[in-house]
Amino acid sequence: MSPASSTDNKKGWLSKTRLEAFSDGVFAIAITLLVLDIAVRPGGSPLDEFFSAWPSYVGYVVSFLTIGVAWIGHTALTDELDHVDPVFLRLNLLLLLVVVFLPFPTSLVTEAFGDRDAERVAATVYGVTMLAIRLLGIALDHYADREGLYADREPDVELTRGRRKDLSGVILYVIAILVGLVFPGIAVTTYFGITLYLVIPFRELGRLLRRGRSAGTA
Amino acid sequence: MSPASSTDNKKGWLSKTRLEAFSDGVFAIAITLLVLDIAVRPGGSPLDEFFSAWPSYVGYVVSFLTIGVAWIGHTALTDELDHVDPVFLRLNLLLLLVVVFLPFPTSLVTEAFGDRDAERVAATVYGVTMLAIRLLGIALDHYADREGLYADREPDVELTRGRRKDLSGVILYVIAILVGLVFPGIAVTTYFGITLYLVIPFRELGRLLRRGRSAGTA
Amino acid sequence: MSPASSTDNKKGWLSKTRLEAFSDGVFAIAITLLVLDIAVRPGGSPLDEFFSAWPSYVGYVVSFLTIGVAWIGHTALTDELDHVDPVFLRLNLLLLLVVVFLPFPTSLVTEAFGDRDAERVAATVYGVTMLAIRLLGIALDHYADREGLYADREPDVELTRGRRKDLSGVILYVIAILVGLVFPGIAVTTYFGITLYLVIPFRELGRLLRRGRSAGTA
Amino acid sequence: MSPASSTDNKKGWLSKTRLEAFSDGVFAIAITLLVLDIAVRPGGSPLDEFFSAWPSYVGYVVSFLTIGVAWIGHTALTDELDHVDPVFLRLNLLLLLVVVFLPFPTSLVTEAFGDRDAERVAATVYGVTMLAIRLLGIALDHYADREGLYADREPDVELTRGRRKDLSGVILYVIAILVGLVFPGIAVTTYFGITLYLVIPFRELGRLLRRGRSAGTA
Repeated sequence: MSPASSTDNKKGWLSKTRLEAFSDGVFAIAITLLVLDIAVRPGGSPLDEFFSAWPSYVGYVVSFLTIGVAWIGHTALTDELDHVDPVFLRLNLLLLLVVVFLPFPTSLVTEAFGDRDAERVAATVYGVTMLAIRLLGIALDHYADREGLYADREPDVELTRGRRKDLSGVILYVIAILVGLVFPGIAVTTYFGITLYLVIPFRELGRLLRRGRSAGTA
Repeated sequence: MSPASSTDNKKGWLSKTRLEAFSDGVFAIAITLLVLDIAVRPGGSPLDEFFSAWPSYVGYVVSFLTIGVAWIGHTALTDELDHVDPVFLRLNLLLLLVVVFLPFPTSLVTEAFGDRDAERVAATVYGVTMLAIRLLGIALDHYADREGLYADREPDVELTRGRRKDLSGVILYVIAILVGLVFPGIAVTTYFGITLYLVIPFRELGRLLRRGRSAGTA
Repeated sequence: MSPASSTDNKKGWLSKTRLEAFSDGVFAIAITLLVLDIAVRPGGSPLDEFFSAWPSYVGYVVSFLTIGVAWIGHTALTDELDHVDPVFLRLNLLLLLVVVFLPFPTSLVTEAFGDRDAERVAATVYGVTMLAIRLLGIALDHYADREGLYADREPDVELTRGRRKDLSGVILYVIAILVGLVFPGIAVTTYFGITLYLVIPFRELGRLLRRGRSAGTA
Repeated sequence: MSPASSTDNKKGWLSKTRLEAFSDGVFAIAITLLVLDIAVRPGGSPLDEFFSAWPSYVGYVVSFLTIGVAWIGHTALTDELDHVDPVFLRLNLLLLLVVVFLPFPTSLVTEAFGDRDAERVAATVYGVTMLAIRLLGIALDHYADREGLYADREPDVELTRGRRKDLSGVILYVIAILVGLVFPGIAVTTYFGITLYLVIPFRELGRLLRRGRSAGTA
């Protein structure tokens, strides 16, 4: 790393390797801590107990994929960076602050099941957190672009994909948060849907499917 | 890292260093969180309490070695990669999702001791999780192979070892899961056995033993 | 890493890459574990419960930013290092020991709300921990400087920033700790203030604002 | 990493970078999880509560330094490696298994205070765990040496230091474990002493002190 960092460190510039290492660590831990909130609920037969805990399984999967998508976006963004500056470091810290917070609204949602008032509070906190992750990711991208932190080369496929889905993601989150004030179940289902929409690589799957079909026809 | 990633990033390709760093982090945390489930059970003398917690010690060792083996396999696989693509990133995320989940079935198993119904549920969830880890590892390998993500060179010793043991591992897990519906104890013992079979480097141990013996004879 | 470390390892010198990786990991985990202390308090409506937990949200944000600032300072310092020695490794371990400890005083503070005696104890422990993080950071910097561990080049922008704010930070912490023995609320507010003062990049924000304004005038 | 790993991967050899990254992660997490066991005990004034928790503070510091020393030793060892093989990977996994286990005996010790029988059990489990960490570290070193995994160069200062202290450490642990069966307090104090003996860089401190004194005389 020494040779890389000695050339990286121009005046007032900071090397990005430590930022990547630290951020990878934080994403990895936040995504792993989600398992601590999975727990069966006492009462009924062992099989009933296991299946009655389904909200915590769904919460685990949705939050895991959400952090996973945020990590993929973060990787794509920092891969393109040439260097970072003090403001970028701190914006990144804010993004991590919200990502690390996600296990808390996740547990709110999985514990709220059945109590309508609690569901409304939980769905709102969850939605605002997801929106904040998305907005801070966009802010990082814009700041890096405006301040010339990106290297001069083609943006990679994930960064382009992320930007294409940026605006639609934000609008959907805002709508879902508003809907969730009245119908929390619909909001949470929408968050699940947005996460799937962000995580599923439709273009590549389409390509794979077309290739499979043409191979079958040939 | 900058020089490496600038040559790595061809059109639509993604650098694999961040994938490795993130995956290493997730494996490391998942394996470490297992210790949180070890706890003595109140009742009896301190020595009794300590020894009566043996299921949680066994669960800790088996799950630790399982994640360890999965990590070794993951390392072997990604070491051979030349680059990754968006689908691979997401398949990898699914593998991590199941690996991170493992502490939950582990705690189910160690808490179920003595209650036959709970043992059946726990053994099944545990077995299905282990099978899913194995299947997703195989899926990653096949996808990388089919899409030409591997570099052109000899696969390393661990990857070859893993492939040799792949099919037998899957078949054994399926049998053990079915057996566990009736005899959960046998199933859990089998999972322990499969993990040992996967973790013990028989070939190298044989070589070391033969060498030791011939040195003794000479 | 092999080529780098083989040139790094001169007589009695140690490579710094592992120190960085380990420290990044510890900072990342300590900052992430803070979320485990966030919990709503039972009693009242779901909305009341959510808002009554505000001390734990504030504690989370302040401690997160504190560890974040400590990490930025640590990165800036080790980026400048040419190599490390056994004493530096151990001083660094002491710094990490205090950083990892921070979630405990954070939970003391958030649980003490409303009980004046508990607030005094909590504010003091919290302040002493933050002071210790600051002092050990300064000790690392001085030791590296005195023992010639730094590479011969311009210190980067974050290291200079950190040093500029060093003495004022220490004096403020000492005053706040003393004040906190009588008025714990004022002390905790001051800790929040110091953290914001350390984290906000005033110079860069000023530059960005001036640029924005001149762009608006032009 | 790609260029490094492509030259690293000779026949049957494995790159060591992932081993280092994974081990660093596991050490970092194990050392950080120790904070979760710190908790004040209810009863008495807030100040009494805080100070009555002193066993958990001592346990935290001793276990933190123990894992820290193990990490320093691990770094020193793997820094010297040229490559790793499948047996080394698995021996390393065993070492990590014991390191990750350490928070459990630590909590046993801190909870046993005042109950003589519990103290005996806790002191024994704690001592055996520390001995196992030490023995597995020695085993890794011997295996690497015997199988020619080390690069041909001078061992670094930490590896030499570790080896010098190896035998005395093992003998002391064995004696302390036996003593602890009767006098657990003495055993735990000895473990603290051994950890300090291993962590304090006497040679360097002596050099620094002599230099300071001669500077004062001149």
